[in-house]
Amino acid sequence: MQYFEDLEVGTKASFGHYQVTREEVIEFASKYDPQPFHLDDEAAAQTYFGRLSASGWHTCAMTMRMMVEHFSSQEAASLGSPGIDELRWIKPVYPGDTLRVESELIEKRQSKSKPDMGFTKTRQTTFNQHDEPVMTMIGNGIIRVRDPEASAG
Amino acid sequence: MQYFEDLEVGTKASFGHYQVTREEVIEFASKYDPQPFHLDDEAAAQTYFGRLSASGWHTCAMTMRMMVEHFSSQEAASLGSPGIDELRWIKPVYPGDTLRVESELIEKRQSKSKPDMGFTKTRQTTFNQHDEPVMTMIGNGIIRVRDPEASAG
Repeated sequence: MQYFEDLEVGTKASFGHYQVTREEVIEFASKYDPQPFHLDDEAAAQTYFGRLSASGWHTCAMTMRMMVEHFSSQEAASLGSPGIDELRWIKPVYPGDTLRVESELIEKRQSKSKPDMGFTKTRQTTFNQHDEPVMTMIGNGIIRVRDPEASAG
Repeated sequence: MQYFEDLEVGTKASFGHYQVTREEVIEFASKYDPQPFHLDDEAAAQTYFGRLSASGWHTCAMTMRMMVEHFSSQEAASLGSPGIDELRWIKPVYPGDTLRVESELIEKRQSKSKPDMGFTKTRQTTFNQHDEPVMTMIGNGIIRVRDPEASAG
């Protein structure tokens, strides 16, 4: 089990392989982001995107799937995520794309009020098959401290 | 059609009605966030959440659905969203909850390099049926300027 003390700022990881299908792009958009350029080829052709593209929230969801698959193998003493900073949709994601993720731990600090908890910030970048970043975000995490008294202060 | 010039900082809106079902919570989590506490009652009972709760990304997706339904009725000259700031998952969302959204335009500025484009920041808060905020975020938007020469500078 990986605790706060085991995390090292600067640690990088590269993982994931997600094939974006036209069927899934339309299914997600139909339920959660039914804007014409995520649903219809002709409507999409008239926009900046040029052709049918995935909802930005779908890209978040696909990225989360790759994160969960990667980090579940590590058994970290995670206490969940309070949120995300600076989520940026940089390039459209198209059906036929293949996505992958790179992550880097950029900050960790122990809670002052609850010394059994630590806070982390992780930069996550989602790439397409051309190695172009399509989305970046900074994920906030909470993780258990193994030995609160030893490491406090 | 609503352009940059028509937007007034401080404008608020309240909209949406989304019933969260157990079936949809499990379906979303199975695809995109297969952590045990989003899939299984017993696993969830052993966590901070207490019982089965929706993936935070599912709450984003349900909120987007309400946003699209609301703003599509307004025909804004939107050019999409570059991203989100300060996304915070404040309280768990449970099957049986009913969600709604409040939004407020908190900032607008015309692009200096591209005066036909304006940037907006909108605070969006998602509430449950107890009027508790479950999620907040600041959405960034791009919108067309009707008359770039008149309003520049």
